[in-house]
Amino acid sequence: MATPMPQAEQREPDARRYAKLPDPFPMWRGGALHRAQIAYETWGRLNAARDNAVLLFTGLSPSAHAASSPEDPREGWWQRMLGPGLAIDTDPLFVVCVNSLGSCFGSTGPASSDPATGRPYRLSFPDLSVEDIARAGYEVARSLGIERVDTVIGPSLGGMVVLAYAALFPGAARRLVSISGTLAASPFAIALRSIQREAITSDPDWRQGNYATDRPPHTGMRLARKLGTVTYRSAAEWQQRFDRQPARPDLQRNEPFAPEFAVQGYLESQARRWVNAFDANCYLYLSRAMDRFDLEAHGEPVEVLRRAGVEQALVIGVESDLLFSIAEQRAVARALQAAGAATRFTPLQCIEGHDSFLIDIERFGREIRAFLG
Amino acid sequence: MATPMPQAEQREPDARRYAKLPDPFPMWRGGALHRAQIAYETWGRLNAARDNAVLLFTGLSPSAHAASSPEDPREGWWQRMLGPGLAIDTDPLFVVCVNSLGSCFGSTGPASSDPATGRPYRLSFPDLSVEDIARAGYEVARSLGIERVDTVIGPSLGGMVVLAYAALFPGAARRLVSISGTLAASPFAIALRSIQREAITSDPDWRQGNYATDRPPHTGMRLARKLGTVTYRSAAEWQQRFDRQPARPDLQRNEPFAPEFAVQGYLESQARRWVNAFDANCYLYLSRAMDRFDLEAHGEPVEVLRRAGVEQALVIGVESDLLFSIAEQRAVARALQAAGAATRFTPLQCIEGHDSFLIDIERFGREIRAFLG
Repeated sequence: MATPMPQAEQREPDARRYAKLPDPFPMWRGGALHRAQIAYETWGRLNAARDNAVLLFTGLSPSAHAASSPEDPREGWWQRMLGPGLAIDTDPLFVVCVNSLGSCFGSTGPASSDPATGRPYRLSFPDLSVEDIARAGYEVARSLGIERVDTVIGPSLGGMVVLAYAALFPGAARRLVSISGTLAASPFAIALRSIQREAITSDPDWRQGNYATDRPPHTGMRLARKLGTVTYRSAAEWQQRFDRQPARPDLQRNEPFAPEFAVQGYLESQARRWVNAFDANCYLYLSRAMDRFDLEAHGEPVEVLRRAGVEQALVIGVESDLLFSIAEQRAVARALQAAGAATRFTPLQCIEGHDSFLIDIERFGREIRAFLG
Repeated sequence: MATPMPQAEQREPDARRYAKLPDPFPMWRGGALHRAQIAYETWGRLNAARDNAVLLFTGLSPSAHAASSPEDPREGWWQRMLGPGLAIDTDPLFVVCVNSLGSCFGSTGPASSDPATGRPYRLSFPDLSVEDIARAGYEVARSLGIERVDTVIGPSLGGMVVLAYAALFPGAARRLVSISGTLAASPFAIALRSIQREAITSDPDWRQGNYATDRPPHTGMRLARKLGTVTYRSAAEWQQRFDRQPARPDLQRNEPFAPEFAVQGYLESQARRWVNAFDANCYLYLSRAMDRFDLEAHGEPVEVLRRAGVEQALVIGVESDLLFSIAEQRAVARALQAAGAATRFTPLQCIEGHDSFLIDIERFGREIRAFLG
């Protein structure tokens, strides 16, 4: 009887590199991390003058895998935006995308092992701020020998991070692109995010952050993700896309109040993918960091941005964005302009809400290409 | 030693009357109720011709207590709208407000006792539709000897009910006022409501609807109400009202991810009041009935409304409404106009979102007074 051949070990493709953060790495609201690291990916080549770097921060949930590369051919979260000849053109530019400090895709966060104990930090992770994410990205650039990036760019949470970057490191970015970000989290966004967090913390499986590896708080995370999905999109888009179509038959479970409409099936499939990909405590830390962000913590915003010495700025926002309103985009642009940056503000009419930057690559790409060009 | 004097028994003031529904009361999606009743309150006097009645349907959560009266001097949910000399003037008009079938403030619903078993219906309550709420209100009017109401009026869920009323009972309403309603629930509103329901049904205390009286699914209901509160208001209002003020000190609990901002404290206090006032199963039934509402179930909407024979209609909506968009208001108005009703459509600029009809009595009152006058 033939014994089965041992299969060649399958390794997931992986293009991540890691930068060690200074030890200790002081956190903005107190405490410090030891032996912390940041995962990042790069595209293109750093030129000899080291002045062609684009530093890309992400929204709350993505990894550093913004686009495919020879080491990792899988599609990235900004696949059609980033590459040779694309809007963020990796022929002339050297692009670095960082996985946020506090996240769970290779960077140190609440799910990482605390070197002092050998066990996961969980809620013993120090308070996380948008400023810490910015500083960690700055250290990645420094580790690559880059003193000043050509452009710092970020959407959503990343749109906050780029402002914190400018505030903390005057002169460290020549240009800045803020996409659907804000000068300070609004009470409406705080309300929505705090409900998402409460869905998780009130799930009995959360166990004050000490959930079992094989039993994370999936119920709370599913609710949080479903609500997130709603706040990332818009009523107009879903009217076009789903209208009142019935749910797929396989989602019409025989249980009380089961999904009946296609839009409910969509929420369910989005949620299922996410709860198996993201760590609950990391989510809680990152979500709260967004609520707490307020550029005024660094001083009067225009003065703060003037000290930053940004030469040019692009601010993009979307009329249908529920979480980061178009009024907030206008305020970011006005502050940058008043601070002396040559600022272009482009409110877009996309109907995909906050997530438009992930979907309407044509419109966003046109603006970004024109700015970077 | 003096014995304490027995206190006079305190009875809550109560202005409710009850109409028995026909037995059996057939439900629109099948099944029937027996010995069912509807709680209602009235203001003003029915005239001899019985042609001065205004039939008022409510949103999802209110009772029939729309305004104070000698029997119940407590403030009602539409206190400043309804009364002698007010926009809905109870000097010439006889106003009847009904507690929706399926609710829990005196009308038969899932929390009521099933006469067949003597125990609460819970999930054995038959499927509830907006049409059933309309029919129950129609039976209240008939029980008062009213064959044709002067005006049928309703906000939110009530805005759906008045359309169902017109569809089911041609000729039974001379005039119609739809406030922040819709011809059919939108996928965006369905998404938000289905997340609220899932918060409740995934609370272990819900127990498939069989929760203990002293242990209802408070965690799920609190989440559902908080999300409801967000969807009922608007980002612009909360920016003005809360900005980034800190939470009141008594809400800054010493627990992980406790509320930090005033807006979180507001959500918490709204939720606490509601979870002790509303029944979870009733909420689930009413919420799903809203998702399922689609006037097209009765035929092509304009044809349906033409058969209804409404002479005049008023449609009011609010630009900042997230749940019932201004586009939906316009669609209601166009259908009524095309159906031959002399229709006035007034989109209002209120910033209080869907709840504006409860708050901006000045603007809403002006429109309603002009229409009824």
